[in-house]
Amino acid sequence: MKIVCNKQVLLDGINIGLKAIASKTTMPIILCFVIDVKDNIKLISNNMEMGIETIVDGQIIEPGTIAIDARFFAEIIKKMPDDIITIETDYDFKATISCGKSKFNIIGKSAEEFPFLPKIEKNDAITISQFSLKEIITQTVFSVSPDENNKIMTGELIEINDDNLKIASLDGHRISIRKIKLLKSYEPVSVIVPGKALMELSRILSDDIEKNVSVYLTNKHILFEFDNTILLSRLIEGKYYNLDVMISNDYETRITINKNELLGCIERASLLIRENEKKPIVFNIGAENLEIKMITNSGTMNEDLSIVREGSDVVIGFNPKFIMDVLRVVDDEYIDFYMMDYKSPGCIKDKDGNYIYLVLPINIAN
Amino acid sequence: MKIVCNKQVLLDGINIGLKAIASKTTMPIILCFVIDVKDNIKLISNNMEMGIETIVDGQIIEPGTIAIDARFFAEIIKKMPDDIITIETDYDFKATISCGKSKFNIIGKSAEEFPFLPKIEKNDAITISQFSLKEIITQTVFSVSPDENNKIMTGELIEINDDNLKIASLDGHRISIRKIKLLKSYEPVSVIVPGKALMELSRILSDDIEKNVSVYLTNKHILFEFDNTILLSRLIEGKYYNLDVMISNDYETRITINKNELLGCIERASLLIRENEKKPIVFNIGAENLEIKMITNSGTMNEDLSIVREGSDVVIGFNPKFIMDVLRVVDDEYIDFYMMDYKSPGCIKDKDGNYIYLVLPINIAN
Repeated sequence: MKIVCNKQVLLDGINIGLKAIASKTTMPIILCFVIDVKDNIKLISNNMEMGIETIVDGQIIEPGTIAIDARFFAEIIKKMPDDIITIETDYDFKATISCGKSKFNIIGKSAEEFPFLPKIEKNDAITISQFSLKEIITQTVFSVSPDENNKIMTGELIEINDDNLKIASLDGHRISIRKIKLLKSYEPVSVIVPGKALMELSRILSDDIEKNVSVYLTNKHILFEFDNTILLSRLIEGKYYNLDVMISNDYETRITINKNELLGCIERASLLIRENEKKPIVFNIGAENLEIKMITNSGTMNEDLSIVREGSDVVIGFNPKFIMDVLRVVDDEYIDFYMMDYKSPGCIKDKDGNYIYLVLPINIAN
Repeated sequence: MKIVCNKQVLLDGINIGLKAIASKTTMPIILCFVIDVKDNIKLISNNMEMGIETIVDGQIIEPGTIAIDARFFAEIIKKMPDDIITIETDYDFKATISCGKSKFNIIGKSAEEFPFLPKIEKNDAITISQFSLKEIITQTVFSVSPDENNKIMTGELIEINDDNLKIASLDGHRISIRKIKLLKSYEPVSVIVPGKALMELSRILSDDIEKNVSVYLTNKHILFEFDNTILLSRLIEGKYYNLDVMISNDYETRITINKNELLGCIERASLLIRENEKKPIVFNIGAENLEIKMITNSGTMNEDLSIVREGSDVVIGFNPKFIMDVLRVVDDEYIDFYMMDYKSPGCIKDKDGNYIYLVLPINIAN
C-alpha cells in the first residue's frame, strides 16, 4: 500500500474516525484504524457499538490494507509539518510515514481480524440538514441514562410521522423532547439509537445548514451518511416509553425568566455543593420575584430574580444539575417554566412545543 | 469587618494570593486567605515556604480580620456577576458575601492561628524590571531538581556582582545560566532561592518592562515587592556549586540551527517514547546536515535538518526532554550548539554569554 495525502485533510479524517475508537477493550484490533485503499482511501474505525468509514482525499500509488494503532497514528500525523504525507506499508505490515525530511517507521497489523462494518441495504433516505440534526441531538442527548442495566434508557427515541421528527431521551428523573419539521413526509418509523453514538455523531456534524445528512434505517442498524463519512450504529431493541402519558399540559403557575440570569444564579449556588452532596436548589416563586436558595454544609446562598408570573405562589426544589443541563442547551433568551405544585414535575417548554423539558422535583417538604 | 470591592479588582488579588496557598497540608489554616482590614485591605496567604501579601483596592466600612478557605472563596468570587462585592463578617466568623441580588453565607475562621509573614527589615533595594525578572526566571527555573533530598539543587542561585546579575539552576544532568546587566551597581551578594517560589513569582510578575520589582535580602529571606504585592520566600541555606569549573569554553564542533525546526523535530520523535521509556535522541552531525534519530520499542523516526557547521563529525545522544526544555525558553531564531565528543556535555549558548545551557549526553556507545 502506498498513498499520498495532504496533512490537514488526513488529520480531518483521523479526527472523525477517532470518535469510533474504543477507549478500553479486550480486543486490541479495535484500537486500530484500518486504512483500506482500493479505489479510494478509506479510514475505518469500529468500537463494536458504532463504526465510522470516512474517505480521505489523496493519491493512490498502490492499493492495500493495514491496521494501525489509532491514537498513536493520530499523534504522529498531528505533529508532522504542514506538508504532503506519504504512507507506505510492506508485506510485513511495517508502515513508513514520511513528511518532508521526517520519516517514521512503525509496526502495523493485518486487518484480517478487524470487524469491518456490515453492508447496509440503502432504502429511502430520510434527509435532514447537518445543522438541525446536530442541534436536536445536543439539545436532548444529555438526559439519556448512563446506566447500562436499563438499555432502553441509554438510547434516544427517534420517531418520524409524516414530516414530523421527534427525538427524546429520559433517565427516570427527567425527559427531553425536541421536535422539528422535515422537508417532506416519510413513512412512520420509530427507533431507539444509542445515546453515545448520537453524541459522537453530533461532534462530527458540521454547523452548515446547507449540508445534509441522509439517514437510512434497517431492522438492526441506523446509518448516517454525510460529506465523505458514514456512521453506522446498532439500534437498541425494545419498545420506548409512552411519553404522551408522562407529559401533561396542566399547570398552576407559569413564570417567564431570563435564561442566562437563572443559569448564572444556579451555577453560583452549586459552588456550595461538595462532592456527592445531594442538595436541592429551591425556587420560591412570588408575584414578581423568584427567590433562589441553596443550603448545604458549606453555607447558604440566596438570590432574587425578576420574573413575569401567571398563577400562584409555589415553593419547589430541583436537582440543580438537571435545570442547568436544560438551560445550557436552550437557545431562547427568555424561557417559560410551568409548575403545578411542589410534588409535580416542572416543565420548561416553548409555546410551539418545539422543545419540552420535564424535570421531577426533589421533596423539600421538611 | 466590612468591605466593598470591585469584583475584578478582588479577583486579581485572589489570583495572586492563590499562588501561596498550599495544595495539601496537615495545617488547615494555611489553606485559607486571611483578609486583614486595617488602613487597607490586605489579602494574605502563606504555604510556609513562601508568603504573599497583596493589597486590594476597595472601601473599608469596618476594619477586622478573618481567615477563609481560599479556593472556595476564589470560586465564589469568580462566579459572581461583574459588579460591586460586599464582604461582611460577624463576631462568629460568619461571612456574608453579596453582589447584586446574590448573597452567600459561609463559615470563616479566626486568623489567630495563621502564620502571618515576619516583618522584614528593608535595607537597600535591588531594582529590576518585572519583565526581565520574569524572563530570566522562566529561562532557568525548569532545570532545578525536584528531588527534595538535595535541598540546594531545588533552588536557584541568584548572584550579584557590581551591575551583573546571574541566575542559575542545575539538577545533576544539566545547568542553566542567565546573565543580565542591572541599571546600577550593588554590593556583591549570592543567595539560593527555592525554585518553587521563583516559579510562582514569575507567574505573578507582569510583562511590563516599565514596571519594577524591588528585591530585599536578609540572612534568611528574600522579599520581592512590586505593584500592590509582596512575595516573601525563605532562602535555602548552604553554598551553591562552583559553576565556573563545570563550564568549559572548549569545543570541537559548533552547529548553527533553526530553533523551531529542531524543536518540532524532537517533539515528533518523542511521540515514539512510551511512559517511563528512556531513549536518547541521537544527533548525527555531518558537514551540512544534522540527522536526528530516535529508536524505541514503538518504532523509529529520523529526520534531516540543515545546519551550518564548524568542526568535525559527531554522533551524540541526549535526553530529548532536556533539549526541548531549553529550546522552548530560548528567544533566538537560530541557536549555536557546541560539542566536544559523544561523552562530553553539549552546550547551547549565545555569543555574548547571556545564556548558557549545558546538557550531559546519554551514552550511545553501543
